[in-house]
Amino acid sequence: MPHISLGNDAPGILSLFEYRPETAKPLCDLAEVLLRGPSSLTRGERELIASYVSTLNDCNFCASSHAAFAAAQLPEGMALVDQVRADPDGAPVSPKLAALLRIAAAVQRSGKDVRPADIDAALEAGAIDLEIHDTVLIAAAFCLFNRYVDGLATIVPEDPAGYAAMAELIVSHGYAASAVPAAG
Amino acid sequence: MPHISLGNDAPGILSLFEYRPETAKPLCDLAEVLLRGPSSLTRGERELIASYVSTLNDCNFCASSHAAFAAAQLPEGMALVDQVRADPDGAPVSPKLAALLRIAAAVQRSGKDVRPADIDAALEAGAIDLEIHDTVLIAAAFCLFNRYVDGLATIVPEDPAGYAAMAELIVSHGYAASAVPAAG
Repeated sequence: MPHISLGNDAPGILSLFEYRPETAKPLCDLAEVLLRGPSSLTRGERELIASYVSTLNDCNFCASSHAAFAAAQLPEGMALVDQVRADPDGAPVSPKLAALLRIAAAVQRSGKDVRPADIDAALEAGAIDLEIHDTVLIAAAFCLFNRYVDGLATIVPEDPAGYAAMAELIVSHGYAASAVPAAG
Repeated sequence: MPHISLGNDAPGILSLFEYRPETAKPLCDLAEVLLRGPSSLTRGERELIASYVSTLNDCNFCASSHAAFAAAQLPEGMALVDQVRADPDGAPVSPKLAALLRIAAAVQRSGKDVRPADIDAALEAGAIDLEIHDTVLIAAAFCLFNRYVDGLATIVPEDPAGYAAMAELIVSHGYAASAVPAAG
């Protein structure tokens, strides 16, 4: 049960978006530009970073929903997402994505944990500055979203079908749609 | 030295806002509504929560800048801000603000660290649901901002006068102004 009366029974962050539309707008705008806006990282790669960081933060709602969004947009589907969440170092991702995932894991612990060696490894693996920037900001953003969702004890759906339905909505319509109450 | 080439020498998050205006916009919009929008928490109280969480995250730029923003908007000025940052339990704040600071500290560790007893204590001290919501989101947001600023190793000014100048700008013009390159 949520810690405060949200006045709706939508799952996870959707209940918070309904409760406080004034803050929902910039949060959805941020997710849209970071996870779906123009980028040399694919949408699937960016959702994978989001799900991985949410896994590290032990946020079931965000980890499951963004796993579904990643799987729907990656050629390798959920098998790769599961591998990355369980064992990122052993997962069959490109050297560039592996290096970016290591940066994301450092950011999840603390911004100060990102070392010049982590950046050098990403650059050597072919990452460009903007991809490193966006990886840091995606990881930091999910340290917000995860704390927001769990800090208010929002409802976490048990049925995986719920996440697949959300994925269809996000892949087709983007994050702006999730700020609309009817989307919950 | 920043981890990537930002193409400007603005301090802290201002350099990132100049580098990536597409993400600066929703981040500034979020700060504006959370820290300065209509609320039964004063602007000074909200900036105090922001500076306190940034202190816990050991983010010198955000802790110092939001300390200046809080001091400029609290009747008790920097003396109270310093006390809260050093010893929140011993600081002379209202029971309501003390309870909200404890919730913010829990969120800084993990969303799951917020316990029903923390919420009950805040309600008993007179907090309303929306104040609890906004406290959780302010704390979560600074877990983003702190990681963003330190994860890319942005420049931290040594001179306190720089933070006082930023405070004048924010107090007068709000966070939308900080997304403008000239503001750096």
